Amino acid sequence: MYPFAAGLYAPRNRWYVAARSAEVGRAPMERFILNEPVVFYRTEAGDPVALDGRCPHRGYPLGKGRVEGDAVVCGYHGLRFEADGRCSHIPSQAIVPPKARVKAYPLVELWDWMWIWPGEPELADPALLPDHQALGLTDPNWIKRPPLYWTVEGRYQLLNDNLLDLTHLSVLHADTIGGGDVAATEERHEEGPGWVRSVRWISDATVTDWVRKSRGIEGAVDREIMLTFAAPGFHFGHDRYYPAGSDPATAAPMLDIRIFHAVTPATLTRCHYFASSAVDPATFELSRKYPADPASALKIFTEDVDAIGEIERLLGQAGEFDEVPLRADVHALRGRRLVEAMIRAEPPQAGDAGNAAAPHRTHGVAAT
Amino acid sequence: MYPFAAGLYAPRNRWYVAARSAEVGRAPMERFILNEPVVFYRTEAGDPVALDGRCPHRGYPLGKGRVEGDAVVCGYHGLRFEADGRCSHIPSQAIVPPKARVKAYPLVELWDWMWIWPGEPELADPALLPDHQALGLTDPNWIKRPPLYWTVEGRYQLLNDNLLDLTHLSVLHADTIGGGDVAATEERHEEGPGWVRSVRWISDATVTDWVRKSRGIEGAVDREIMLTFAAPGFHFGHDRYYPAGSDPATAAPMLDIRIFHAVTPATLTRCHYFASSAVDPATFELSRKYPADPASALKIFTEDVDAIGEIERLLGQAGEFDEVPLRADVHALRGRRLVEAMIRAEPPQAGDAGNAAAPHRTHGVAAT
Amino acid sequence: MYPFAAGLYAPRNRWYVAARSAEVGRAPMERFILNEPVVFYRTEAGDPVALDGRCPHRGYPLGKGRVEGDAVVCGYHGLRFEADGRCSHIPSQAIVPPKARVKAYPLVELWDWMWIWPGEPELADPALLPDHQALGLTDPNWIKRPPLYWTVEGRYQLLNDNLLDLTHLSVLHADTIGGGDVAATEERHEEGPGWVRSVRWISDATVTDWVRKSRGIEGAVDREIMLTFAAPGFHFGHDRYYPAGSDPATAAPMLDIRIFHAVTPATLTRCHYFASSAVDPATFELSRKYPADPASALKIFTEDVDAIGEIERLLGQAGEFDEVPLRADVHALRGRRLVEAMIRAEPPQAGDAGNAAAPHRTHGVAAT
Repeated sequence: MYPFAAGLYAPRNRWYVAARSAEVGRAPMERFILNEPVVFYRTEAGDPVALDGRCPHRGYPLGKGRVEGDAVVCGYHGLRFEADGRCSHIPSQAIVPPKARVKAYPLVELWDWMWIWPGEPELADPALLPDHQALGLTDPNWIKRPPLYWTVEGRYQLLNDNLLDLTHLSVLHADTIGGGDVAATEERHEEGPGWVRSVRWISDATVTDWVRKSRGIEGAVDREIMLTFAAPGFHFGHDRYYPAGSDPATAAPMLDIRIFHAVTPATLTRCHYFASSAVDPATFELSRKYPADPASALKIFTEDVDAIGEIERLLGQAGEFDEVPLRADVHALRGRRLVEAMIRAEPPQAGDAGNAAAPHRTHGVAAT
Repeated sequence: MYPFAAGLYAPRNRWYVAARSAEVGRAPMERFILNEPVVFYRTEAGDPVALDGRCPHRGYPLGKGRVEGDAVVCGYHGLRFEADGRCSHIPSQAIVPPKARVKAYPLVELWDWMWIWPGEPELADPALLPDHQALGLTDPNWIKRPPLYWTVEGRYQLLNDNLLDLTHLSVLHADTIGGGDVAATEERHEEGPGWVRSVRWISDATVTDWVRKSRGIEGAVDREIMLTFAAPGFHFGHDRYYPAGSDPATAAPMLDIRIFHAVTPATLTRCHYFASSAVDPATFELSRKYPADPASALKIFTEDVDAIGEIERLLGQAGEFDEVPLRADVHALRGRRLVEAMIRAEPPQAGDAGNAAAPHRTHGVAAT
Repeated sequence: MYPFAAGLYAPRNRWYVAARSAEVGRAPMERFILNEPVVFYRTEAGDPVALDGRCPHRGYPLGKGRVEGDAVVCGYHGLRFEADGRCSHIPSQAIVPPKARVKAYPLVELWDWMWIWPGEPELADPALLPDHQALGLTDPNWIKRPPLYWTVEGRYQLLNDNLLDLTHLSVLHADTIGGGDVAATEERHEEGPGWVRSVRWISDATVTDWVRKSRGIEGAVDREIMLTFAAPGFHFGHDRYYPAGSDPATAAPMLDIRIFHAVTPATLTRCHYFASSAVDPATFELSRKYPADPASALKIFTEDVDAIGEIERLLGQAGEFDEVPLRADVHALRGRRLVEAMIRAEPPQAGDAGNAAAPHRTHGVAAT
């Protein structure tokens, strides 16, 4: 489905951020992940659990059940599923049939959020997770913000697209983190296995009032914006401020803000969005003031969330359309290609609705 | 469609409860029955009428028209349809063409509700209706409650399934009519042409506080729960209380409550639910107190209505799923089989959307 | 799609009313026309502009952008589109690729509304527009009302059907402009290229209280109702009142009200409705009092809008149905045939969803 080729939705054998730590407790919580209902809860020891959110007996949502000990009990006929997905008790019979089990999703809690692996559990390798220590998220010296969360009313790749093309900062976020210079500044594209990176050095930038006020910047600065997309749904980077006229090769930033975005498919046309940031303690003096106005920080994200919703609305009402690619999209198109390659590398899922979606319309002709 | 095979929806040549008596008056009322709009009203003599709810001229709902004498007049161009469906007047022309008529549904008012026959009118035999006198509903000595009504946001068979597997009493209704002993008690299955029956004798049952308070039961009791499913949509049975240690073969109940449920397909994914009860006057002394708390009686039904809605929600969002049948489902699966056989025994309906639904997904493979 | 043959939606190479003049200003406004999003705005000189409402870069609605000078700027990445649809600026690159343009819809502002041509721009001939001077709309001596507007929750031809069969006046509008005599009065049908006309002379008519009060009519009158349908979406006519017993060939009306309705497909199942009226100044004395009660004039239209919504609701819930044509439909069926012929005369549109709709069900058999 758009913006991928017909029938392609999302790679399953990958890590995605599923929830913030604080969202998962002893009460079961349902959340759709890659178009499947998943139930989240914690064991008595506090370990987070993610199971298929639908009881295989009669289809009642386990998210509407209750947690007992380390298990979730279906609210309809009382089937009890342990944290590994095995059914350990059926009130109406003594023997539990082997088929009475639900899928247990590999789930790793790291820092203030948790990562889920929707595909084959045996392929779930924690070594494939981003290095949270290197990112600064688990470094106690860094100043972190707990992740924010939005349900976005648009397919996940629209949000990936958004983050892969930062020229929108100058328009959609013109009043906040934007500024005409971002779109006009040459982008450096880097690429590696499973990731693409965009770097911009903006010399002598006149920042917006919002940046001035919220980040304590005075006068013109040099600014480096980097964002790395680790397909299929994680973006990390930095927004660094230097004295104007600095040498990019040697300068130390006055302020070094690390940016983290996680994008997870919820349904075919909806996604989860987690965002956070951290500040390098070496730039603490300036960062102490940041942000002066939390409400305006929320405004940036709301602008993106609304934009994705608007694009999805037109896709739903008027169908797919013929994209005109720009130079600025080279990076985004490579990002899309990474995700598409990940999908194609997996065996087709039986009954995967997302992989049987409407054909992508190309110029004037409906592709079959 | 689930839980039936692909393309199977509901048998048409059967009686279904369509409305409570009090719902139908001189003002026309629209209600969907087996995915068709039907208009209900009463003649001047008070006889209930059910006609195709859509004017065959330009498709305006007759439920938005008005009743004149014994006829309903379309609110758009004034076509007048008599109680037999024949058009008797067209304001813009003197002659009524023979095709200008609507289907008149056979409709029988019995006790406080009315039964409709959605199929071929000439096959509608009142002898096929349940015997309301034998059920206690039309016996003036019995203490009856007027039927309650809910629109349930789920396909009708989910509600039939619910009533065919009473092990859910111990879980979904744990605080009201439930109790752990129902699910654990052996079920006796009986079967006849067009019906299946489930009987449970629960010895020395510790009833819930709700049963104690609302039914005036003190201490432990023996309890017999029977429910008969007369396919495709009527359930009747009893909930009887005996002194603990009674002999099932000879004991007389302290309290004999008769239970009546009627389930009628509304649309493909919505149904009508009518429920009532009656108490044997021979057990009047105890039943006099019942129910102490009508609000909590409503709570039981709301638990079922909500559960069906939750299952339908997941079916809609995540598609069909692989059912794991339990021992307790033997009875329910026989009940489903009755309905499915009734559908298959009928000629396919031209343009019957319900009989061209999505394929049922079995384990790992989409059935064709 | 109903009421046309399967796959037929609407002719594109035709003029339709798109908006009232007052609706279009310097802020961009989105409106769906023939199932496509269109953005409307005015240039600095005040000229109205209609462009494809979706940015071809990443699908963001231009209606959510902003107008700068004579251009609209996309709110996402800042692409700037001139009034002719040409992209004149892309913030992130110096050269604009030739494909970066949006369709500019021919748009003609006449009187208080504007006409759009959804099809091939080179075929848009203003000579095909109705003659507004002859209609009285641009004649300064006539007393006009600014057009009213409704979004109707039904496919456009249901509203055309409504206006093509005025026998509904006696029923749906029985309390306002109706009266039993309209439906019973013989209709004169006239026809020409692209239009059909219905004329009724109602002798010695007893008008409703509403007509009496709002139009200053005393006692019985002769009344002539004429409505011409200029396919695919414009209706004009008159409602004339004469002294009772007048000679139709020679009489001068006491009151001559001109009626104008414009019907424009919005989506497949929704349409735009514009309505206005004008009074011949030669009948000024009586018309001075008209209307006494603007609220009740709105009531007439609300009755139609609600009726179309009800018909569409049943089409959506219960599917198409078998129409029984009446004598009064001869005129309406010819009107439909005009529209259908206009659709068939056009080449099929690539990806035109409306032209691949559900088959029309005929008597007992689903047409293929």
